[in-house]
Amino acid sequence: MSGNTFGKLFTVTTFGESHGAALGCIIDGCPPGLELSEEDMQRDLDRRKPGTSRHTTQRREADEVRILSGVFEGKTTGTPIGLIIENTDQRSKDYSRIAAQFRPAHADYTYHHKYGARDYRGGGRSSARETAMRVAAGAVARKFLEQRLGIKVRGYLSQLGPIKTDKLDWEQVHQNPFFCPDADKVSEMEAYMDALRKEGDSIGARINVVAEGVPPGLGEPIFDRLDADLAHALMSINAVKGVEIGAGFDCIEQKGTEHRDEMTPEGFLSNNAGGVLGGISSGQPIVASIALKPTSSLRLPGKGIDVDGNPVEVITTGRHDPCVGIRATPIAEAMMAIVLMDHYLRHRGQNGDVEVTTPVLGQL
Amino acid sequence: MSGNTFGKLFTVTTFGESHGAALGCIIDGCPPGLELSEEDMQRDLDRRKPGTSRHTTQRREADEVRILSGVFEGKTTGTPIGLIIENTDQRSKDYSRIAAQFRPAHADYTYHHKYGARDYRGGGRSSARETAMRVAAGAVARKFLEQRLGIKVRGYLSQLGPIKTDKLDWEQVHQNPFFCPDADKVSEMEAYMDALRKEGDSIGARINVVAEGVPPGLGEPIFDRLDADLAHALMSINAVKGVEIGAGFDCIEQKGTEHRDEMTPEGFLSNNAGGVLGGISSGQPIVASIALKPTSSLRLPGKGIDVDGNPVEVITTGRHDPCVGIRATPIAEAMMAIVLMDHYLRHRGQNGDVEVTTPVLGQL
Amino acid sequence: MSGNTFGKLFTVTTFGESHGAALGCIIDGCPPGLELSEEDMQRDLDRRKPGTSRHTTQRREADEVRILSGVFEGKTTGTPIGLIIENTDQRSKDYSRIAAQFRPAHADYTYHHKYGARDYRGGGRSSARETAMRVAAGAVARKFLEQRLGIKVRGYLSQLGPIKTDKLDWEQVHQNPFFCPDADKVSEMEAYMDALRKEGDSIGARINVVAEGVPPGLGEPIFDRLDADLAHALMSINAVKGVEIGAGFDCIEQKGTEHRDEMTPEGFLSNNAGGVLGGISSGQPIVASIALKPTSSLRLPGKGIDVDGNPVEVITTGRHDPCVGIRATPIAEAMMAIVLMDHYLRHRGQNGDVEVTTPVLGQL
Amino acid sequence: MSGNTFGKLFTVTTFGESHGAALGCIIDGCPPGLELSEEDMQRDLDRRKPGTSRHTTQRREADEVRILSGVFEGKTTGTPIGLIIENTDQRSKDYSRIAAQFRPAHADYTYHHKYGARDYRGGGRSSARETAMRVAAGAVARKFLEQRLGIKVRGYLSQLGPIKTDKLDWEQVHQNPFFCPDADKVSEMEAYMDALRKEGDSIGARINVVAEGVPPGLGEPIFDRLDADLAHALMSINAVKGVEIGAGFDCIEQKGTEHRDEMTPEGFLSNNAGGVLGGISSGQPIVASIALKPTSSLRLPGKGIDVDGNPVEVITTGRHDPCVGIRATPIAEAMMAIVLMDHYLRHRGQNGDVEVTTPVLGQL
Repeated sequence: MSGNTFGKLFTVTTFGESHGAALGCIIDGCPPGLELSEEDMQRDLDRRKPGTSRHTTQRREADEVRILSGVFEGKTTGTPIGLIIENTDQRSKDYSRIAAQFRPAHADYTYHHKYGARDYRGGGRSSARETAMRVAAGAVARKFLEQRLGIKVRGYLSQLGPIKTDKLDWEQVHQNPFFCPDADKVSEMEAYMDALRKEGDSIGARINVVAEGVPPGLGEPIFDRLDADLAHALMSINAVKGVEIGAGFDCIEQKGTEHRDEMTPEGFLSNNAGGVLGGISSGQPIVASIALKPTSSLRLPGKGIDVDGNPVEVITTGRHDPCVGIRATPIAEAMMAIVLMDHYLRHRGQNGDVEVTTPVLGQL
Repeated sequence: MSGNTFGKLFTVTTFGESHGAALGCIIDGCPPGLELSEEDMQRDLDRRKPGTSRHTTQRREADEVRILSGVFEGKTTGTPIGLIIENTDQRSKDYSRIAAQFRPAHADYTYHHKYGARDYRGGGRSSARETAMRVAAGAVARKFLEQRLGIKVRGYLSQLGPIKTDKLDWEQVHQNPFFCPDADKVSEMEAYMDALRKEGDSIGARINVVAEGVPPGLGEPIFDRLDADLAHALMSINAVKGVEIGAGFDCIEQKGTEHRDEMTPEGFLSNNAGGVLGGISSGQPIVASIALKPTSSLRLPGKGIDVDGNPVEVITTGRHDPCVGIRATPIAEAMMAIVLMDHYLRHRGQNGDVEVTTPVLGQL
Repeated sequence: MSGNTFGKLFTVTTFGESHGAALGCIIDGCPPGLELSEEDMQRDLDRRKPGTSRHTTQRREADEVRILSGVFEGKTTGTPIGLIIENTDQRSKDYSRIAAQFRPAHADYTYHHKYGARDYRGGGRSSARETAMRVAAGAVARKFLEQRLGIKVRGYLSQLGPIKTDKLDWEQVHQNPFFCPDADKVSEMEAYMDALRKEGDSIGARINVVAEGVPPGLGEPIFDRLDADLAHALMSINAVKGVEIGAGFDCIEQKGTEHRDEMTPEGFLSNNAGGVLGGISSGQPIVASIALKPTSSLRLPGKGIDVDGNPVEVITTGRHDPCVGIRATPIAEAMMAIVLMDHYLRHRGQNGDVEVTTPVLGQL
Repeated sequence: MSGNTFGKLFTVTTFGESHGAALGCIIDGCPPGLELSEEDMQRDLDRRKPGTSRHTTQRREADEVRILSGVFEGKTTGTPIGLIIENTDQRSKDYSRIAAQFRPAHADYTYHHKYGARDYRGGGRSSARETAMRVAAGAVARKFLEQRLGIKVRGYLSQLGPIKTDKLDWEQVHQNPFFCPDADKVSEMEAYMDALRKEGDSIGARINVVAEGVPPGLGEPIFDRLDADLAHALMSINAVKGVEIGAGFDCIEQKGTEHRDEMTPEGFLSNNAGGVLGGISSGQPIVASIALKPTSSLRLPGKGIDVDGNPVEVITTGRHDPCVGIRATPIAEAMMAIVLMDHYLRHRGQNGDVEVTTPVLGQL
């Protein structure tokens, strides 16, 4: 499989650069009969794009998705679904200077070494623009998971720089521009962000994604374990530098007696496993957490080099987002949904005949 | 691809349960001309197996690997390499009790829900035994990477429970049973482990893996980014619950000006990226870190349920390893080597190095 | 991999139904630096579409392809290439009758059994319209093969119903509407077709595709042999019912001494192998031949059934093409080019030709 | 995917050369609960190996298969099934002369150009020995298909050189050494073979494979159509040079009114489609036919060249089989079974929820 296709049975193949004519993707393997419309995807796309908070009336990036195939009379046909988002916000800028530079902590240098050249306009394929299609594709998966299986996938910001959230109130998540589930932290986050914006610097973030209602049995050991595929999917998001499942790095200092999630007829007594045991879903909520690095597109000068190896000072002008990590929330939800969709189809196929009478444990 | 095959061009497919007749694997895509013998793999296998420390003369699990194909006159032919390890240490035990139980924090429950049954002897396919083949396959990759490309992949224990290592001295790593690179911490670790063993409890660990000498340009955006594939490979190891690249979760609280690795003609000024930028290797050392959960095979009783849903008290008898995480070091090295090998071939071709002087025949 | 993606390193993923909004595809894995424009693809598309012969000035299906990504400043960047063809010739017809019918020898019945429903407008995804994208993608492969490797892929009609061609003159192939390489047979074919058109019946055809200049060594035994992948690619074209390589079915009655292509320092003495030996290219021209079945879209009534199982008489109205097989010529060329491209990259790497002089940075 | 793995959900990965230590394979994706033992596979293997006819008491190649994993208490567990056949009939011969030669119509030349070297003992990986594992893996698929779905896959010789069979009596197929279904042709075939053996020459053959009881709906358009995957699987068998489905190459001269399989409430009126329509199974018997080339291992001298390009005369000594094509019958059955198994699992997964009330047509 090429690097731009994800999944085995439910596959998502994307194309598009930040300044190309359009972004698009092909979703293959969506079962027939699912009601689907542009609205299903537009909702999630709107959450992702910049300007939703401080500039709610302005739409700088239209991000309007169009369905080109695979849907007939409002339902999926089982044939591939083609999606497209035309790039409208393409300002013609003078990029000639950037063309010859490698900005520190950007993919310029590595893309150049891989391809021998690069589309330097705004980051090209390495730009976060391509994630728009992942969100669109993820919306299809989320709809199927929710409607057919009652699986709910939701994410939230659990940490912005030094500020950690203490409470998890799902209702709060969409009430503020941070996907923050803790109302008490919002103003602190706003102040922090304003300060950063003034400084011209940026900060990282931590996002949690939770999938509830996942039936036990999903995952294909030993290499396509559910947690391994989730790690792959989440680490493939721009700016992600770490992935944890359940207790994650806290496991290091946990005793075995602490860590193990004991089982009673009423349910599991804890969820340090994060919903995945032996690489297979246990029926418990699947809990993943990712670390996003701070953006490197800063107006504060940084040391870079040009294509001939000479030192240059690099400054990024234009719109400045002090914490791009926040915007990863819908993308992380989308990737988790896509992985679960793929695994559901793989399992349902390979073990559809298996009848298990052993009770499924809930959680106390 | 099925769940038991890893990789795109350099693929590893494994089989085998802890108490089956044998473990085995097929390595496909190894370029021709690489000198290879059982010794190359045995070395890494010996490092992995239990008893290397306190019982260096005893070999409870022989773990002797045999090459069945793909090597001729001491060199790989380019055809698939079949490897086998016959299971010799199969004690006939009375497993009937375990058969009907789901041990907490083991894969019993999830395997049962997936397959409707399971080979309950010692964990079956979910047991860590299968990792022996990964180490064997990884040895092939490591040899190629080192001989052909000068790439060195090495791992070490960076944290055992609460004990963190301060120094990194590669020479120390194989001088103690912990893969500990800091001589000053070894006795502390030994004492800690002895205490745990007496308690009957277990603890987690953190392993770091480093690949040096990796050329820039490896990785296939956007889904098969090098870091995404590494995360996949490492998370697929039993007991891994978290993966970080470079600064990892420390990124959350890093400012952009701190995080970015500035570039000068003499080189990069730091390596928070961990050697991967935009999903592609930058030429810097690739640094990954994983969290291993504490083993759940304890003699301290835990609450489980049986196949009918009744509560049972579960005790694991037999050999007790208080920190299985340590043993993941060679496995993590193996997985990183396999990923790099696969990506190298994707970038440069499986036979790109083959030089054939035999004339090409035209047609009369 | 899903059913709508072809290839391992050079992959083509398509979407689109005959009456959907658009057809499209994503080409992933095209190496960077190849000059590419819409014209390169339009040329091959124009050869494929109906109306090129008797109605050369009319364009009923515009089939105008647009490049949406992956090309910058006239050259491929190595990132995915998105292509789109908007469907313009969508007559709003009354399909309600057809919706409930299964036409004999059409995919209606099988699509219904697979998906539980189908887009019945004009054949939906099973229509030959989707092959337009294959031709567009194939044009990219053909350009690379020709420019970089000097490989030429060309096809021609070798038999139309009972009329076999005797001579192979490449110059003739594009001088007539049949892709016929034998000028002496053209008027016979025209007369035959006119008679069929009057009858309202149809006939099959045989197409040969030849690739010259292919270096030896392409093909991945044992399952992805070059000939096996070619057979897959060609059999996947609508209406193909048979594939032969080299002497093909003539081998059955050939003696071993006849069949074998002897070798001398000057070259091979024959090419019964068709350029593939042991599943790997030999350097000889690769010769494949396919059988196309006659179209089933006839105005002559045929027996079908409706969705409830009742007998119906089926008549197809509208444009009638007595030999759709002819139109498979550019599609067969495209598929062969795509297979060769994929195998070349597997053998030699996706970026093996990229030369980067920019210095590699070390670490301070 | 590498070249030595076949399939998407039910995958078969093989290794082994004719003179290596062993042949083996890993079957991944077999659902749990299928009763399986070595006998199931040994039966099909015994049919394949040489010496079954004239030397029924001699076993020159033992071909004893052993199950190493994936089966517990007589049933598959859903985990990978490892199979092994130790190579016992390895005569130590003097191959030094052959090492430097390229025998005409053998894979020597192409393997050399691909890998830069080759295991020249008896053909190495290009030898037909590797097909033994395909037969073993195919036996697993056939058992599942038959037991779970009532699908029967059977093959027979339909033509040996110039001798065509007229009748199809399944009972006859295993009563003679030719897999010939027409008792009246057996002595003619024996005489023909004896003559060939005296001449020292060889001849080709045609094998037909039929799958009955296949439910409609299997196949994944557009690239993984069932017929395309079958063509791939069958063309991957050594010596196959052509594949047809249904009417195959006869389609060329068939009128549309002749070719189409009309449908009535009682069933299809014909089966020119060969059981596949639009790339999806129709419920009709799937009928494929393959052409096998004559073996090139002859004692009659042929012109070859050596590694330096000098002309040499090549003679093959040792056991001589005038028609290797015959032996392809169990291999063709195995490949068809593997393809159907894979597609069943892919379909059952992606469309397991689809309920179709439209009646399934049988055949008149």
